[in-house]
Amino acid sequence: MYRLTICYGHPADPTAFDEYYRTVHRGLAERVPGIQKFVVGRCDSLDRTPPPYYLVAELSFATKEVMQAALASPEGEASAAADLANFATGGATLFGQEDW
Amino acid sequence: MYRLTICYGHPADPTAFDEYYRTVHRGLAERVPGIQKFVVGRCDSLDRTPPPYYLVAELSFATKEVMQAALASPEGEASAAADLANFATGGATLFGQEDW
Repeated sequence: MYRLTICYGHPADPTAFDEYYRTVHRGLAERVPGIQKFVVGRCDSLDRTPPPYYLVAELSFATKEVMQAALASPEGEASAAADLANFATGGATLFGQEDW
Repeated sequence: MYRLTICYGHPADPTAFDEYYRTVHRGLAERVPGIQKFVVGRCDSLDRTPPPYYLVAELSFATKEVMQAALASPEGEASAAADLANFATGGATLFGQEDW
């Protein structure tokens, strides 16, 4: 199993971010082919400092190759590249995770 | 479900980190009460730059309160606080995630 992790930085307008993510981005992302599991978590601090990210999305694929093909598909391009600019005002850090 | 996420920065000596994590730290962490799922991923870059973290561990608990009690337990203190200093030479970023 290979996980694509997207860590969203704190947006300028959290209410607008939530609304856009829920009503537009999640639907686009769910159309990316090959996703076996889609988990979204709202980040929470363990102390009194703000958490390092606002939201984390983890998309699971069978292998890294399946994930790469998915990101290069029209649905992947629409979601990953084109749509992020529409709402991720706090930036987004993307990386992969190979089960260990 | 509440997830405790530990993002390990790149260690000074990856081989020593891997060996310590596998033979000592993971065993200590698995003794923390209330863990329902324990997933460890080795981070991988999506382009040619190094990934932002070396390893990510995600521990799932029923609720935030269960996680807080677990971290405050003797096993939690031994694993989370005391043992990190023994191997996490690249630092560790901890935060919670509430399913969204």
